[in-house]
Amino acid sequence: MTIRVAVAGATGKLGSVAVRLIEAADDLELVAALDSRTPLDAMLGADVLVDMTLPQVSPEIVAFGVDHGLKVLVGTSGWSADRILDLERRVAGQEGGGAVVIPNFSLGSALGTAFATVAARFFDSIEIIETHGVGKVDSPSGTAVRTAELIGAARLQRGPVDAPHTDQRARGQQVASVPIHSLRMRGVAAQQQVIFGGAGETLTIRHDTIGSEAYEAGILLALRAAATTTGVVVGLDKLVDLGIAEPDGEPPRPTVREV
Amino acid sequence: MTIRVAVAGATGKLGSVAVRLIEAADDLELVAALDSRTPLDAMLGADVLVDMTLPQVSPEIVAFGVDHGLKVLVGTSGWSADRILDLERRVAGQEGGGAVVIPNFSLGSALGTAFATVAARFFDSIEIIETHGVGKVDSPSGTAVRTAELIGAARLQRGPVDAPHTDQRARGQQVASVPIHSLRMRGVAAQQQVIFGGAGETLTIRHDTIGSEAYEAGILLALRAAATTTGVVVGLDKLVDLGIAEPDGEPPRPTVREV
Amino acid sequence: MTIRVAVAGATGKLGSVAVRLIEAADDLELVAALDSRTPLDAMLGADVLVDMTLPQVSPEIVAFGVDHGLKVLVGTSGWSADRILDLERRVAGQEGGGAVVIPNFSLGSALGTAFATVAARFFDSIEIIETHGVGKVDSPSGTAVRTAELIGAARLQRGPVDAPHTDQRARGQQVASVPIHSLRMRGVAAQQQVIFGGAGETLTIRHDTIGSEAYEAGILLALRAAATTTGVVVGLDKLVDLGIAEPDGEPPRPTVREV
Amino acid sequence: MTIRVAVAGATGKLGSVAVRLIEAADDLELVAALDSRTPLDAMLGADVLVDMTLPQVSPEIVAFGVDHGLKVLVGTSGWSADRILDLERRVAGQEGGGAVVIPNFSLGSALGTAFATVAARFFDSIEIIETHGVGKVDSPSGTAVRTAELIGAARLQRGPVDAPHTDQRARGQQVASVPIHSLRMRGVAAQQQVIFGGAGETLTIRHDTIGSEAYEAGILLALRAAATTTGVVVGLDKLVDLGIAEPDGEPPRPTVREV
Repeated sequence: MTIRVAVAGATGKLGSVAVRLIEAADDLELVAALDSRTPLDAMLGADVLVDMTLPQVSPEIVAFGVDHGLKVLVGTSGWSADRILDLERRVAGQEGGGAVVIPNFSLGSALGTAFATVAARFFDSIEIIETHGVGKVDSPSGTAVRTAELIGAARLQRGPVDAPHTDQRARGQQVASVPIHSLRMRGVAAQQQVIFGGAGETLTIRHDTIGSEAYEAGILLALRAAATTTGVVVGLDKLVDLGIAEPDGEPPRPTVREV
Repeated sequence: MTIRVAVAGATGKLGSVAVRLIEAADDLELVAALDSRTPLDAMLGADVLVDMTLPQVSPEIVAFGVDHGLKVLVGTSGWSADRILDLERRVAGQEGGGAVVIPNFSLGSALGTAFATVAARFFDSIEIIETHGVGKVDSPSGTAVRTAELIGAARLQRGPVDAPHTDQRARGQQVASVPIHSLRMRGVAAQQQVIFGGAGETLTIRHDTIGSEAYEAGILLALRAAATTTGVVVGLDKLVDLGIAEPDGEPPRPTVREV
Repeated sequence: MTIRVAVAGATGKLGSVAVRLIEAADDLELVAALDSRTPLDAMLGADVLVDMTLPQVSPEIVAFGVDHGLKVLVGTSGWSADRILDLERRVAGQEGGGAVVIPNFSLGSALGTAFATVAARFFDSIEIIETHGVGKVDSPSGTAVRTAELIGAARLQRGPVDAPHTDQRARGQQVASVPIHSLRMRGVAAQQQVIFGGAGETLTIRHDTIGSEAYEAGILLALRAAATTTGVVVGLDKLVDLGIAEPDGEPPRPTVREV
Repeated sequence: MTIRVAVAGATGKLGSVAVRLIEAADDLELVAALDSRTPLDAMLGADVLVDMTLPQVSPEIVAFGVDHGLKVLVGTSGWSADRILDLERRVAGQEGGGAVVIPNFSLGSALGTAFATVAARFFDSIEIIETHGVGKVDSPSGTAVRTAELIGAARLQRGPVDAPHTDQRARGQQVASVPIHSLRMRGVAAQQQVIFGGAGETLTIRHDTIGSEAYEAGILLALRAAATTTGVVVGLDKLVDLGIAEPDGEPPRPTVREV
């Protein structure tokens, strides 16, 4: 059975990747490619709306899709906990409503975050270094913030990490007690290291992205999952069976997504 | 309740760490410290035998302990699958018999190996780099071999990794299809990287050890676990609840332990 | 004054970058773009021939250029010491003849190699790790081989590096006594690490390339240098004033270039 | 000929290493080992005073040595440009006076800093990450500050590095326009990375220290050099012929030394 897909933000960086993938897949059909001037009802008739637009317009577009009975895959950044709560209410009010929100489409990134959440319970020194290109305006990155929040949630019993002297400027910005250090450099696409330190040893989980190919498998996976999802699912790791249990604490919602 | 402990190999590198830890712990009592010239029956009266000796004498010492009703913690290297099978038979023949075999006492190493086993199912390029001091005579390291074997076991369905041109010498040695590269350098204690590559991205799990403090928490954990173990348990990760499921394939036994 | 340029291999990966750069530069004029079917005399009239073809045809094309009075920039791989010796004889026989041979157009790579040559005199443990995509058929990479040869040359007085147990397969391939480890992975463009180990410390010089933009500055620099070069110059580091002295030993000629 | 040495701070971490090295060397004789309660004139009769004390007392001890005709090796931290200027005046006023000030005794660190100074002229993205143990109270480290200052001095013509969005807390602390990121973690002794980014590439110079053995060769080298130095020499790199030219700009004096 073919899944009929409408892509909003079809001319954007991520959106154009989605369009290309959909056109190449036998089980997917592109029925509408919306840019910023396309009327929203162009998406009607699709099974799934893929939203890869901009934070300021994304909620309205997504709401339109949900209200008109489409399943939705949200790949736009900036979906904070509040926005997701609103989305859950809206989806619940729609019979058969379903949405998938993906802060980072890279499978390696999802795995790295999941591993960091497990290791968080075993080390008291934890810091994050993330490096992106000079064009990235916000710091820390959304993925780093989310990783730190998940680490914090996994440590509800153990307590905050032991990060001394964080009043000093060179010690970075703390999120959920975890110092994050943001580098912005030419010659780097996207990179994140989560470093865990204990007596006599360190464990480092590092993820490097060098091209948008890194997002392709995740986009396809999430798109196919969205077609059958009921309710709201957040994060690529929820769509893949990693065999890793949830930590006791309720994981925080992602607050920001990479741009 | 105090656990009475005998340490064989008490003057060795790891054994002397164990002796020091036992003497400092309120719930542990050192009742015998055996070196290579001490009669084996010096261990009698202990609840747990800690074996941190040498590969060639370890099986005899461990067998003596099991046969005389002691629980055993094996920290000596070189416990291959065959040796462990023998140990299981011997332990099964002893009422209340129990043994814990630990290839690497570092918690970070155990976590890293567990993460590598999970990631193994999601990437087709997987290689291992391990670096140790110039004094290490064998390569690849036992931990690297075990990591590769666990990766292989986790890929029973997906098949061997995609490692091209491994006939060329610079491409390292393959274990369970995973190329392993061994560096031997001054100024390094112990380091291992497992690198996973997919379209446009890599995920790296790196573990660094700079001192024997890295083994202390693992030694205490394993020693206390050994006191109540029935049967044979292999690997520190089996003693800690990582919240990570076993892969479908039966994991291989460790074949070699770091020296 | 405008430099008139002919590019052989104009449709190849590196050649097409050169064509684009030449067309965008005010001081450069593209007078001929040769592919494998273009007669060689199409290059006549140019001041500089840029050869970015294939190892098997490159010497003939370069010879044609030299013999017809063009300056030559060689960017094709496979220019061994023997080939360069032949080229020197040919260039010497041509009045005003000049050629620049560049094994790697990346400035960062040239700097890294120069630094490695300096550090080579101060440490006894030296190993190289290079990682490229799965499509690269040869190992070790040409840049790694050249780096090892330069390290060897810099150690004429100190002697070979101290690399134990290199009979073991996992220890990689030795070039000029330096063990080289080659990884071939999805998700990596090109990466090289030269690691130096001494008592209690390591120094690592690492170079990462994520796209062909890394070669652009080097191509322009070498092209402009070629226009005024007399004799044969090998290596980007010879065209930039790094302020680093030559080691006492005569540096070896590059034997292979990256493909 | 034997060099007669007095060590101030002989019971400290670095001082005790110096004492041990002097006692083991045939050409060195320990004539006085001063701790905080030893009268300063105990050093009289020595050829060289080694000062490895604390920032608040170091200037007085060093002044006493210079004024009494001893050559001085300063290994204490906190020797700012002002202090060194004072020292130069004092040494100049003493016939045959000489002093060597070493901010970091590790040869690998000295090489890394020298390389960073060369690379500084070729890339516009430059950032530093330094990681030390949780016990280190100041950040950034003295070596990182000095590295950044030397990078700044080498870029007098090229101008400040291009580091966007440094008003954001996660972007670290800028020194001479270079962002520095300081991590404080268990399981790390000392580590510094200087990362250079250009179009499509990064070059990383990384130094790892795992033990005080890393300082031994540098201490001996500096001590022997101090015995024959006239005037004031700052930095281990000035005592070793690296074959690297000084940058055009006058390099800044080190301001702080590692503790």
